[in-house]
Amino acid sequence: MKRSRICACVWWCLIACVTVAFAAEQAKTVVLPAPRTSGGMPLMQALKERKSGRDYSGKEISLQTLSDMLWAGFGITRPDGRRTAPSAANVQEIDMYVAKADGLFRYNAQANILELISAGDIREATGVQGFVKNAPVNLIYVADFSKKGRFGAQKDSWAAMDTGFIAENVYLFCASEGLSTVVRGLFDAELLSKKMKLRADQKVMLTQSVGYPQ
Amino acid sequence: MKRSRICACVWWCLIACVTVAFAAEQAKTVVLPAPRTSGGMPLMQALKERKSGRDYSGKEISLQTLSDMLWAGFGITRPDGRRTAPSAANVQEIDMYVAKADGLFRYNAQANILELISAGDIREATGVQGFVKNAPVNLIYVADFSKKGRFGAQKDSWAAMDTGFIAENVYLFCASEGLSTVVRGLFDAELLSKKMKLRADQKVMLTQSVGYPQ
Repeated sequence: MKRSRICACVWWCLIACVTVAFAAEQAKTVVLPAPRTSGGMPLMQALKERKSGRDYSGKEISLQTLSDMLWAGFGITRPDGRRTAPSAANVQEIDMYVAKADGLFRYNAQANILELISAGDIREATGVQGFVKNAPVNLIYVADFSKKGRFGAQKDSWAAMDTGFIAENVYLFCASEGLSTVVRGLFDAELLSKKMKLRADQKVMLTQSVGYPQ
Repeated sequence: MKRSRICACVWWCLIACVTVAFAAEQAKTVVLPAPRTSGGMPLMQALKERKSGRDYSGKEISLQTLSDMLWAGFGITRPDGRRTAPSAANVQEIDMYVAKADGLFRYNAQANILELISAGDIREATGVQGFVKNAPVNLIYVADFSKKGRFGAQKDSWAAMDTGFIAENVYLFCASEGLSTVVRGLFDAELLSKKMKLRADQKVMLTQSVGYPQ
Protein backbone atom coordinates (compact mmCIF):
# COMPACT_ATOMS: atom_id res chain seq x y z
CA MET A 1 0.00 0.00 0.00
CA LYS A 2 2.77 2.39 1.04
CA ARG A 3 4.75 1.39 -2.04
CA SER A 4 1.83 2.11 -4.39
CA ARG A 5 1.41 5.57 -2.82
CA ILE A 6 5.06 6.35 -3.46
CA CYS A 7 4.66 5.13 -7.03
CA ALA A 8 1.63 7.38 -7.57
CA CYS A 9 3.50 10.34 -6.09
CA VAL A 10 6.48 9.80 -8.38
CA TRP A 11 4.12 9.41 -11.32
CA TRP A 12 2.34 12.71 -10.63
CA CYS A 13 5.64 14.51 -10.11
CA LEU A 14 6.77 13.22 -13.49
CA ILE A 15 3.61 14.44 -15.20
CA ALA A 16 3.98 17.86 -13.53
CA CYS A 17 7.60 18.12 -14.68
CA VAL A 18 6.70 17.22 -18.26
CA THR A 19 3.84 19.76 -18.22
CA VAL A 20 6.09 22.54 -16.94
CA ALA A 21 8.80 21.66 -19.47
CA PHE A 22 6.23 21.63 -22.28
CA ALA A 23 4.84 25.03 -21.22
CA ALA A 24 8.37 26.46 -21.08
CA GLU A 25 9.06 25.08 -24.55
CA GLN A 26 5.84 26.62 -25.81
CA ALA A 27 6.88 30.01 -24.43
CA LYS A 28 10.02 29.82 -26.55
CA THR A 29 8.01 29.57 -29.74
CA VAL A 30 5.98 32.19 -31.58
CA VAL A 31 3.43 30.53 -33.82
CA LEU A 32 3.13 32.66 -36.96
CA PRO A 33 -0.22 33.20 -38.68
CA ALA A 34 -0.45 31.36 -42.01
CA PRO A 35 1.26 33.56 -44.61
CA ARG A 36 -0.92 35.24 -47.23
CA THR A 37 0.61 33.85 -50.40
CA SER A 38 -1.41 35.75 -52.99
CA GLY A 39 -1.83 39.38 -53.94
CA GLY A 40 0.73 42.16 -53.77
CA MET A 41 1.80 44.70 -56.38
CA PRO A 42 2.20 43.66 -60.01
CA LEU A 43 5.80 42.44 -60.24
CA MET A 44 7.11 45.18 -62.57
CA GLN A 45 5.69 47.87 -60.30
CA ALA A 46 7.32 46.29 -57.24
CA LEU A 47 10.63 46.23 -59.16
CA LYS A 48 10.18 49.89 -60.09
CA GLU A 49 9.48 50.86 -56.48
CA ARG A 50 12.23 48.79 -54.87
CA LYS A 51 14.60 51.05 -53.01
CA SER A 52 16.68 51.30 -49.86
CA GLY A 53 15.23 53.30 -46.94
CA ARG A 54 16.94 54.11 -43.65
CA ASP A 55 14.33 56.12 -41.73
CA TYR A 56 11.78 54.22 -39.68
CA SER A 57 8.74 55.36 -37.73
CA GLY A 58 7.94 53.77 -34.37
CA LYS A 59 5.13 51.71 -35.89
CA GLU A 60 5.39 48.01 -35.16
CA ILE A 61 5.19 45.32 -37.81
CA SER A 62 2.27 42.97 -37.18
CA LEU A 63 2.85 39.25 -36.80
CA GLN A 64 0.79 38.70 -39.96
CA THR A 65 3.01 41.04 -42.01
CA LEU A 66 6.12 39.44 -40.51
CA SER A 67 4.83 36.00 -41.46
CA ASP A 68 4.09 37.19 -45.01
CA MET A 69 7.55 38.78 -45.29
CA LEU A 70 9.42 35.72 -44.06
CA TRP A 71 7.44 33.51 -46.45
CA ALA A 72 8.19 35.95 -49.32
CA GLY A 73 11.87 35.80 -48.41
CA PHE A 74 12.39 32.08 -48.06
CA GLY A 75 9.06 30.38 -47.52
CA ILE A 76 8.16 26.90 -48.68
CA THR A 77 6.18 26.73 -51.91
CA ARG A 78 6.21 23.07 -52.91
CA PRO A 79 5.55 19.68 -51.28
CA ASP A 80 9.22 18.72 -51.75
CA GLY A 81 10.27 21.64 -49.55
CA ARG A 82 11.49 23.94 -52.33
CA ARG A 83 11.23 27.62 -51.57
CA THR A 84 10.66 31.15 -52.88
CA ALA A 85 14.42 31.57 -53.41
CA PRO A 86 16.86 29.09 -54.93
CA SER A 87 20.00 27.79 -53.24
CA ALA A 88 23.04 26.12 -54.73
CA ALA A 89 22.35 22.37 -55.05
CA ASN A 90 19.14 23.04 -53.08
CA VAL A 91 21.08 22.82 -49.80
CA GLN A 92 19.04 25.67 -48.26
CA GLU A 93 21.93 26.65 -46.02
CA ILE A 94 20.70 30.16 -45.24
CA ASP A 95 18.71 30.72 -42.05
CA MET A 96 16.73 33.88 -41.45
CA TYR A 97 16.99 35.23 -37.92
CA VAL A 98 14.66 37.96 -36.68
CA ALA A 99 15.91 40.51 -34.13
CA LYS A 100 13.06 42.39 -32.47
CA ALA A 101 12.71 44.38 -29.23
CA ASP A 102 11.39 41.26 -27.47
CA GLY A 103 14.14 38.89 -28.56
CA LEU A 104 16.07 37.09 -31.21
CA PHE A 105 14.27 34.36 -33.15
CA ARG A 106 15.03 31.89 -35.91
CA TYR A 107 12.47 31.48 -38.69
CA ASN A 108 11.44 27.87 -39.02
CA ALA A 109 9.72 27.82 -42.41
CA GLN A 110 8.68 24.17 -42.17
CA ALA A 111 6.70 24.73 -38.95
CA ASN A 112 5.91 28.41 -39.71
CA ILE A 113 7.13 29.44 -36.27
CA LEU A 114 9.73 31.72 -34.74
CA GLU A 115 12.05 29.82 -32.40
CA LEU A 116 13.29 31.96 -29.53
CA ILE A 117 17.10 32.11 -29.38
CA SER A 118 17.41 34.73 -26.63
CA ALA A 119 15.04 37.17 -24.95
CA GLY A 120 17.33 40.23 -25.20
CA ASP A 121 17.14 43.07 -27.74
CA ILE A 122 20.21 42.70 -29.98
CA ARG A 123 19.01 44.99 -32.80
CA GLU A 124 21.75 47.55 -32.19
CA ALA A 125 24.44 44.87 -32.70
CA THR A 126 23.17 44.06 -36.20
CA GLY A 127 24.88 47.08 -37.77
CA VAL A 128 27.18 50.04 -37.27
CA GLN A 129 24.69 52.68 -38.42
CA GLY A 130 22.63 54.66 -35.91
CA PHE A 131 19.29 53.97 -37.62
CA VAL A 132 19.54 50.23 -37.06
CA LYS A 133 18.06 50.30 -33.54
CA ASN A 134 15.02 52.26 -34.80
CA ALA A 135 13.89 49.49 -37.13
CA PRO A 136 11.32 47.24 -35.41
CA VAL A 137 12.73 44.25 -37.28
CA ASN A 138 16.30 43.48 -38.23
CA LEU A 139 16.73 40.34 -40.28
CA ILE A 140 20.03 38.49 -40.00
CA TYR A 141 21.03 36.04 -42.74
CA VAL A 142 23.20 33.22 -41.39
CA ALA A 143 24.91 30.53 -43.46
CA ASP A 144 24.91 27.11 -41.82
CA PHE A 145 27.99 25.38 -43.22
CA SER A 146 27.23 22.20 -41.29
CA LYS A 147 24.79 21.37 -44.08
CA LYS A 148 26.12 18.78 -46.45
CA GLY A 149 27.45 19.61 -49.87
CA ARG A 150 28.68 23.11 -49.10
CA PHE A 151 32.34 22.43 -48.44
CA GLY A 152 33.75 23.30 -51.86
CA ALA A 153 36.00 26.27 -52.56
CA GLN A 154 32.94 28.23 -53.66
CA LYS A 155 30.92 27.76 -50.47
CA ASP A 156 31.32 31.35 -49.29
CA SER A 157 30.50 32.81 -52.69
CA TRP A 158 27.45 30.58 -53.13
CA ALA A 159 26.21 31.33 -49.62
CA ALA A 160 26.52 35.04 -50.41
CA MET A 161 24.49 34.63 -53.61
CA ASP A 162 21.91 32.48 -51.84
CA THR A 163 21.57 35.30 -49.30
CA GLY A 164 21.11 37.82 -52.11
CA PHE A 165 18.24 35.82 -53.62
CA ILE A 166 16.33 35.87 -50.32
CA ALA A 167 17.10 39.49 -49.41
CA GLU A 168 15.87 40.67 -52.82
CA ASN A 169 12.57 38.88 -52.21
CA VAL A 170 12.28 40.80 -48.94
CA TYR A 171 13.11 44.05 -50.75
CA LEU A 172 10.30 43.46 -53.26
CA PHE A 173 7.86 42.47 -50.52
CA CYS A 174 8.68 45.73 -48.70
CA ALA A 175 8.19 47.74 -51.90
CA SER A 176 4.83 46.08 -52.37
CA GLU A 177 3.73 46.63 -48.75
CA GLY A 178 4.99 50.20 -48.32
CA LEU A 179 7.71 49.13 -45.88
CA SER A 180 11.15 50.70 -45.72
CA THR A 181 14.17 48.39 -45.86
CA VAL A 182 17.91 48.34 -46.45
CA VAL A 183 20.50 45.57 -46.49
CA ARG A 184 23.69 46.14 -44.53
CA GLY A 185 27.07 44.52 -44.94
CA LEU A 186 28.82 46.45 -42.18
CA PHE A 187 28.57 44.93 -38.68
CA ASP A 188 30.87 43.58 -35.99
CA ALA A 189 30.67 39.94 -37.05
CA GLU A 190 32.39 38.61 -33.95
CA LEU A 191 30.18 40.49 -31.52
CA LEU A 192 27.02 39.65 -33.45
CA SER A 193 27.89 35.94 -33.70
CA LYS A 194 28.47 35.85 -29.94
CA LYS A 195 25.19 37.58 -29.15
CA MET A 196 23.41 35.18 -31.50
CA LYS A 197 25.11 32.15 -29.90
CA LEU A 198 26.25 30.93 -33.32
CA ARG A 199 28.42 27.86 -33.74
CA ALA A 200 31.84 28.07 -35.41
CA ASP A 201 30.38 26.63 -38.62
CA GLN A 202 27.71 29.34 -38.86
CA LYS A 203 28.46 32.71 -40.43
CA VAL A 204 26.52 35.99 -40.53
CA MET A 205 26.30 36.97 -44.20
CA LEU A 206 24.12 40.09 -44.23
CA THR A 207 21.64 42.03 -42.13
CA GLN A 208 18.50 43.85 -43.28
CA SER A 209 16.48 46.47 -41.41
CA VAL A 210 12.73 46.65 -41.94
CA GLY A 211 10.15 49.11 -40.68
CA TYR A 212 7.48 51.59 -41.75
CA PRO A 213 8.91 54.78 -43.25
CA GLN A 214 8.79 58.00 -41.27
CA MET B 1 43.62 73.65 -109.30
CA LYS B 2 45.27 70.24 -109.15
CA ARG B 3 45.99 70.78 -105.46
CA SER B 4 42.37 71.64 -104.64
CA ARG B 5 41.23 68.47 -106.47
CA ILE B 6 43.56 66.40 -104.32
CA CYS B 7 42.26 68.15 -101.22
CA ALA B 8 38.64 67.44 -102.20
CA CYS B 9 39.51 63.80 -102.89
CA VAL B 10 41.17 63.39 -99.48
CA TRP B 11 38.21 65.11 -97.88
CA TRP B 12 35.69 62.75 -99.45
CA CYS B 13 37.80 59.73 -98.59
CA LEU B 14 37.82 60.90 -94.99
CA ILE B 15 34.04 61.32 -94.94
CA ALA B 16 33.61 57.85 -96.49
CA CYS B 17 35.91 56.32 -93.87
CA VAL B 18 34.04 57.98 -91.01
CA THR B 19 30.69 56.83 -92.47
CA VAL B 20 31.89 53.25 -92.81
CA ALA B 21 33.32 53.27 -89.27
CA PHE B 22 30.06 54.73 -87.94
CA ALA B 23 28.01 52.07 -89.74
CA ALA B 24 30.30 49.35 -88.38
CA GLU B 25 29.90 50.79 -84.88
CA GLN B 26 26.14 50.82 -85.33
CA ALA B 27 26.22 47.17 -86.36
CA LYS B 28 27.87 46.36 -83.07
CA THR B 29 24.89 47.69 -81.13
CA VAL B 30 21.42 46.25 -80.70
CA VAL B 31 18.97 48.97 -79.72
CA LEU B 32 16.48 47.43 -77.29
CA PRO B 33 12.80 48.36 -77.36
CA ALA B 34 11.79 50.47 -74.34
CA PRO B 35 11.12 48.05 -71.46
CA ARG B 36 7.55 47.57 -70.31
CA THR B 37 7.84 48.59 -66.68
CA SER B 38 4.32 47.87 -65.49
CA GLY B 39 2.16 44.77 -65.19
CA GLY B 40 3.23 41.24 -64.43
CA MET B 41 1.94 38.74 -61.89
CA PRO B 42 0.99 39.89 -58.39
CA LEU B 43 4.25 39.67 -56.43
CA MET B 44 3.19 36.89 -54.04
CA GLN B 45 2.07 34.72 -56.96
CA ALA B 46 5.38 35.26 -58.74
CA LEU B 47 7.20 34.23 -55.56
CA LYS B 48 5.00 31.13 -55.28
CA GLU B 49 5.74 30.16 -58.89
CA ARG B 50 9.48 30.89 -58.85
CA LYS B 51 11.38 27.73 -59.63
CA SER B 52 14.39 26.39 -61.49
CA GLY B 53 13.82 24.82 -64.91
CA ARG B 54 16.40 23.10 -67.11
CA ASP B 55 14.41 22.06 -70.20
CA TYR B 56 14.02 24.57 -72.99
CA SER B 57 12.05 24.49 -76.21
CA GLY B 58 13.54 25.93 -79.39
CA LYS B 59 11.35 29.04 -79.14
CA GLU B 60 13.31 32.28 -79.32
CA ILE B 61 12.96 35.09 -76.79
CA SER B 62 11.78 38.28 -78.47
CA LEU B 63 13.83 41.45 -78.19
CA GLN B 64 10.94 43.05 -76.29
CA THR B 65 10.89 40.26 -73.69
CA LEU B 66 14.69 40.40 -73.43
CA SER B 67 14.53 44.15 -72.86
CA ASP B 68 11.85 43.68 -70.17
CA MET B 69 13.89 40.94 -68.50
CA LEU B 70 17.12 42.92 -68.43
CA TRP B 71 15.28 45.92 -67.01
CA ALA B 72 13.63 43.69 -64.37
CA GLY B 73 17.07 42.34 -63.48
CA PHE B 74 19.06 45.53 -63.18
CA GLY B 75 17.26 48.31 -65.02
CA ILE B 76 17.34 51.97 -64.07
CA THR B 77 14.33 53.18 -62.11
CA ARG B 78 15.27 56.63 -60.87
CA PRO B 79 16.78 59.85 -62.28
CA ASP B 80 19.88 59.39 -60.09
CA GLY B 81 20.62 56.10 -61.84
CA ARG B 82 19.46 53.78 -59.06
CA ARG B 83 18.21 50.42 -60.18
CA THR B 84 15.81 47.53 -59.63
CA ALA B 85 18.44 45.76 -57.48
CA PRO B 86 20.65 47.25 -54.78
CA SER B 87 24.44 47.10 -54.71
CA ALA B 88 26.83 47.64 -51.84
CA ALA B 89 27.55 51.37 -51.52
CA ASN B 90 25.61 51.78 -54.79
CA VAL B 91 28.77 50.92 -56.77
CA GLN B 92 26.76 48.93 -59.34
CA GLU B 93 29.74 46.72 -60.10
CA ILE B 94 27.78 43.88 -61.69
CA ASP B 95 27.42 43.81 -65.48
CA MET B 96 24.89 41.59 -67.22
CA TYR B 97 26.21 39.91 -70.36
CA VAL B 98 23.87 38.16 -72.77
CA ALA B 99 25.08 35.08 -74.69
CA LYS B 100 22.82 34.27 -77.66
CA ALA B 101 23.28 32.27 -80.87
CA ASP B 102 24.21 35.48 -82.72
CA GLY B 103 26.82 36.72 -80.28
CA LEU B 104 27.84 37.89 -76.86
CA PHE B 105 26.53 41.27 -75.73
CA ARG B 106 26.82 43.53 -72.69
CA TYR B 107 23.65 45.14 -71.37
CA ASN B 108 24.04 48.90 -71.20
CA ALA B 109 21.12 49.92 -69.00
CA GLN B 110 21.77 53.65 -69.34
CA ALA B 111 21.45 53.58 -73.14
CA ASN B 112 19.07 50.55 -73.19
CA ILE B 113 21.23 48.80 -75.75
CA LEU B 114 23.17 45.57 -76.13
CA GLU B 115 26.82 46.21 -76.97
CA LEU B 116 28.32 43.50 -79.13
CA ILE B 117 31.39 41.91 -77.53
CA SER B 118 31.90 39.11 -80.08
CA ALA B 119 29.83 37.60 -82.86
CA GLY B 120 30.41 33.95 -81.91
CA ASP B 121 28.02 31.65 -80.02
CA ILE B 122 29.59 31.04 -76.60
CA ARG B 123 26.48 29.66 -74.88
CA GLU B 124 27.99 26.22 -74.40
CA ALA B 125 30.93 27.70 -72.48
CA THR B 126 28.62 29.25 -69.88
CA GLY B 127 28.14 25.98 -68.00
CA VAL B 128 29.08 22.35 -67.67
CA GLN B 129 25.56 20.97 -68.04
CA GLY B 130 24.30 19.70 -71.38
CA PHE B 131 21.09 21.74 -71.35
CA VAL B 132 22.97 25.04 -71.37
CA LYS B 133 23.35 25.22 -75.15
CA ASN B 134 19.60 24.69 -75.63
CA ALA B 135 18.66 27.88 -73.82
CA PRO B 136 18.24 30.76 -76.31
CA VAL B 137 19.65 33.16 -73.72
CA ASN B 138 22.38 32.61 -71.18
CA LEU B 139 22.98 35.52 -68.87
CA ILE B 140 26.45 35.95 -67.42
CA TYR B 141 26.95 38.09 -64.32
CA VAL B 142 30.38 39.74 -64.24
CA ALA B 143 31.82 41.77 -61.37
CA ASP B 144 33.88 44.76 -62.50
CA PHE B 145 36.36 45.32 -59.69
CA SER B 146 37.85 48.34 -61.43
CA LYS B 147 34.93 50.30 -60.02
CA LYS B 148 35.90 52.42 -57.06
CA GLY B 149 35.08 51.51 -53.52
CA ARG B 150 35.10 47.75 -53.95
CA PHE B 151 38.58 46.91 -52.78
CA GLY B 152 37.82 45.90 -49.20
CA ALA B 153 38.18 42.38 -47.84
CA GLN B 154 34.47 41.83 -48.47
CA LYS B 155 34.49 42.73 -52.16
CA ASP B 156 34.00 39.14 -53.36
CA SER B 157 31.22 38.44 -50.88
CA TRP B 158 29.41 41.70 -51.67
CA ALA B 159 29.75 41.14 -55.41
CA ALA B 160 28.22 37.68 -54.93
CA MET B 161 25.28 39.12 -52.98
CA ASP B 162 24.83 41.93 -55.52
CA THR B 163 24.66 39.21 -58.19
CA GLY B 164 22.03 37.33 -56.18
CA PHE B 165 19.79 40.40 -55.95
CA ILE B 166 19.75 40.76 -59.74
CA ALA B 167 19.42 37.06 -60.55
CA GLU B 168 16.41 36.76 -58.21
CA ASN B 169 14.72 39.61 -60.08
CA VAL B 170 15.26 37.64 -63.29
CA TYR B 171 13.86 34.51 -61.62
CA LEU B 172 10.68 36.35 -60.64
CA PHE B 173 10.34 37.92 -64.08
CA CYS B 174 10.60 34.44 -65.62
CA ALA B 175 7.98 33.07 -63.21
CA SER B 176 5.68 35.93 -64.17
CA GLU B 177 6.26 35.49 -67.93
CA GLY B 178 6.12 31.69 -68.08
CA LEU B 179 9.83 31.41 -68.89
CA SER B 180 12.07 28.65 -67.60
CA THR B 181 15.32 29.64 -65.87
CA VAL B 182 18.06 28.32 -63.64
CA VAL B 183 21.19 29.89 -62.15
CA ARG B 184 24.43 27.97 -62.47
CA GLY B 185 27.59 28.22 -60.41
CA LEU B 186 29.51 25.51 -62.25
CA PHE B 187 31.49 26.66 -65.31
CA ASP B 188 35.09 26.77 -66.51
CA ALA B 189 35.81 30.30 -65.31
CA GLU B 190 39.14 30.57 -67.13
CA LEU B 191 37.74 29.44 -70.47
CA LEU B 192 34.65 31.60 -70.14
CA SER B 193 36.65 34.70 -69.16
CA LYS B 194 38.86 34.21 -72.20
CA LYS B 195 35.93 33.78 -74.56
CA MET B 196 34.34 36.90 -73.07
CA LYS B 197 37.58 38.88 -73.41
CA LEU B 198 37.40 39.91 -69.75
CA ARG B 199 40.11 41.95 -68.11
CA ALA B 200 42.02 40.63 -65.09
CA ASP B 201 39.93 42.80 -62.77
CA GLN B 202 36.64 41.36 -64.05
CA LYS B 203 35.24 38.12 -62.63
CA VAL B 204 32.40 35.85 -63.75
CA MET B 205 30.17 35.39 -60.70
CA LEU B 206 27.23 33.34 -61.98
CA THR B 207 25.44 32.29 -65.15
CA GLN B 208 21.69 31.91 -65.74
CA SER B 209 19.94 30.09 -68.57
CA VAL B 210 16.61 31.39 -69.83
CA GLY B 211 14.17 29.98 -72.38
CA TYR B 212 10.62 28.83 -72.88
CA PRO B 213 9.85 25.49 -71.19
CA GLN B 214 9.47 22.38 -73.31
